[in-house]
Amino acid sequence: MHPNPQRFLDSLHALRAIGAVGTGVVRPAYSDKDIEARKWLAGQFRDAGLAPYFDPVGNLFGLAGDGPSLLMGSHSDTQPEGGWLDGAYGVMAALEVARAAKEAGGPAVSVVSFQDEEGRYGVTTGSTVWAGGRSLEDADGLTASDGSTYAQGRARMADLVSGGFLDPARFTGFIEAHIEQGPYLDTAQEQVGVVTSIVGIRDMRITLTGQSNHAGTTPMHLRRDAFQGLADFNRKLNDRLRNVVRPETVWTIGHVSLHPNGSSIVPGRVTFSMQWRDGESDRLARMETIIRETAAEVAAERGLGLEFGRMLGLEPVTMDDRLQQALAEAAEAEAPGKWRRMPSGALHDTTNVARHMPVAMLFVPSIGGVSHNFEEDTREEDLVVGLNVLARAVAAL
Amino acid sequence: MHPNPQRFLDSLHALRAIGAVGTGVVRPAYSDKDIEARKWLAGQFRDAGLAPYFDPVGNLFGLAGDGPSLLMGSHSDTQPEGGWLDGAYGVMAALEVARAAKEAGGPAVSVVSFQDEEGRYGVTTGSTVWAGGRSLEDADGLTASDGSTYAQGRARMADLVSGGFLDPARFTGFIEAHIEQGPYLDTAQEQVGVVTSIVGIRDMRITLTGQSNHAGTTPMHLRRDAFQGLADFNRKLNDRLRNVVRPETVWTIGHVSLHPNGSSIVPGRVTFSMQWRDGESDRLARMETIIRETAAEVAAERGLGLEFGRMLGLEPVTMDDRLQQALAEAAEAEAPGKWRRMPSGALHDTTNVARHMPVAMLFVPSIGGVSHNFEEDTREEDLVVGLNVLARAVAAL
Repeated sequence: MHPNPQRFLDSLHALRAIGAVGTGVVRPAYSDKDIEARKWLAGQFRDAGLAPYFDPVGNLFGLAGDGPSLLMGSHSDTQPEGGWLDGAYGVMAALEVARAAKEAGGPAVSVVSFQDEEGRYGVTTGSTVWAGGRSLEDADGLTASDGSTYAQGRARMADLVSGGFLDPARFTGFIEAHIEQGPYLDTAQEQVGVVTSIVGIRDMRITLTGQSNHAGTTPMHLRRDAFQGLADFNRKLNDRLRNVVRPETVWTIGHVSLHPNGSSIVPGRVTFSMQWRDGESDRLARMETIIRETAAEVAAERGLGLEFGRMLGLEPVTMDDRLQQALAEAAEAEAPGKWRRMPSGALHDTTNVARHMPVAMLFVPSIGGVSHNFEEDTREEDLVVGLNVLARAVAAL
Repeated sequence: MHPNPQRFLDSLHALRAIGAVGTGVVRPAYSDKDIEARKWLAGQFRDAGLAPYFDPVGNLFGLAGDGPSLLMGSHSDTQPEGGWLDGAYGVMAALEVARAAKEAGGPAVSVVSFQDEEGRYGVTTGSTVWAGGRSLEDADGLTASDGSTYAQGRARMADLVSGGFLDPARFTGFIEAHIEQGPYLDTAQEQVGVVTSIVGIRDMRITLTGQSNHAGTTPMHLRRDAFQGLADFNRKLNDRLRNVVRPETVWTIGHVSLHPNGSSIVPGRVTFSMQWRDGESDRLARMETIIRETAAEVAAERGLGLEFGRMLGLEPVTMDDRLQQALAEAAEAEAPGKWRRMPSGALHDTTNVARHMPVAMLFVPSIGGVSHNFEEDTREEDLVVGLNVLARAVAAL
């Protein structure tokens, strides 16, 4: 079974061109560019002898016949300002492996590009709904920061839908290749990471409501300043989490929206995102308790209203031993001494697919550990080594 | 000289109706509603025998003949979500006093509604440019938070301009009536405040630049999180300012803009507003030093880029003794024992006009001290007492 590196790289760059902005890509879920990319992918699947299938939320499958097959892939939607490899690498590597398998009369390999992995409306929304982690009715109510709903998003590609949701039972397993999006492989000058587990994630919006008022005539001691409430919450939270976290635990306030957001007005309201990740469910739960208690304490101290949004989350997931072993042996053959087993700090569609079948993941290095950023990149030789490891593992399975 | 309370209240409510939203008003500088209100005001001036005059930035005057006259007024633009009396009270009270003066054959009283007092593009921009505090060329470069320039804003009413800037020398003095926008008069159940001085203000944008990166795979110790930089700056600043401020000193972070502002991305950049006010220039300067040093320190500690925007500011101003005394005597006559002398924590157009003529200000209470808010309100009897104090003082001058 012999994948074609040049054909693979050409396809990868062709996808990159759709929504390209400088060195990066802007192709958020259900945007014109995202839909254009999925139509192009469907054509690529057809050319490779795979039957394109769009499910009701826009997950795009390339099916290797009606019988059982191994599923491989990732996602082709991007962050608002995304890199060119995040998701795209796993989809195009899967396509090349499927091509090579067909050419070699090897195992049946189907390909998938899940929709809204980057969480414009939720967290890995497309694979979550497909895997039954959230009902479609429930997901339809999710809103993006621009106020649009998931229902409105998926309606933009309703004309492409092939039919209902595919039965996961038709797939014998799932392998997702992805860039590491972290600094570990690059720092160690290694080429491949065989994932052992994926960390769990919790994400919710928190709103603090005070009183917007004149910034010149309202004495400091009479203010109910929502931004000061947020800053106070952030400081207390950082102090308190130190007691429960591990070095690999992360937490982030990435979105902040002040109201009315004028320089001469004491902020009356702030809505912000609170996201935290760790490999252990217990720790995630302990962190949630501290977050809720700290917010309640700050709100009470400052006379602020407090509202918690719905909490989105995914549990930590362990990779399948057999698939993981096949990837490890292929890694040692293709990149002897230059690979490692490692957990994934990033969330992936694999987390959801694991509800229905054995799963595994393969990482290639991210230069400087940079991702979710226009500068995101990986050395071409590492992209190809990753492809070869995948092909070798699939042939061995 | 006898002002007509009902005629005054009717005019005030007629102005309120232009851009009314619930109990509040949305009439930001150069918006359709702001321009509509100024056209309506010009008609009111004409009916009162005052000659309407729009200057190049949209400041609207109602001139009592070509000879010397006393200027009275305030502004008719509002905050993005403004109250119905902020600015409007001073303009309509001035108009009623001008009407009463004409009817009684009293002193010549001209009226003005300055443009962009609320600082959509700067700080009291219209009166600043008229008074020569900033060149028109310079002001044209100011931008609003929606990215539009002052030049684009004033171009929206270019068709109304009557001619060049009026010579301030034609006016013998300026009196501005305004709601207090603070809690002092209302708390003390007093009806009138005679202003002794107006605090100075400093306002600038600060930008901290780090590295936007994946919120799941970037270890906490490797992050250059711009929001964490802002929170750290805010905490250190609050601690350090305690040593130089007085109870009446205020400082505010009212505008915050994160980039890219996604819940799964470590924030790579934050731009925020830093505004501070006090009655003494020396203290304002000491605060500026602490603000700049603290920002530089936080940026250095966290490896963040730091950029200070242009600093807008106005110096503290003392009211004219003679005008102030006339208002004080009228206040004692109209509201015996229910008035006080007090500083203004809010900035007003009077600050700029003071460069060219004697100035004074009169306050009426704000219920609950609430302002820059739809709930802003004042008891009707207090609105009328303020009107009567103005008329009596003008007659006595």
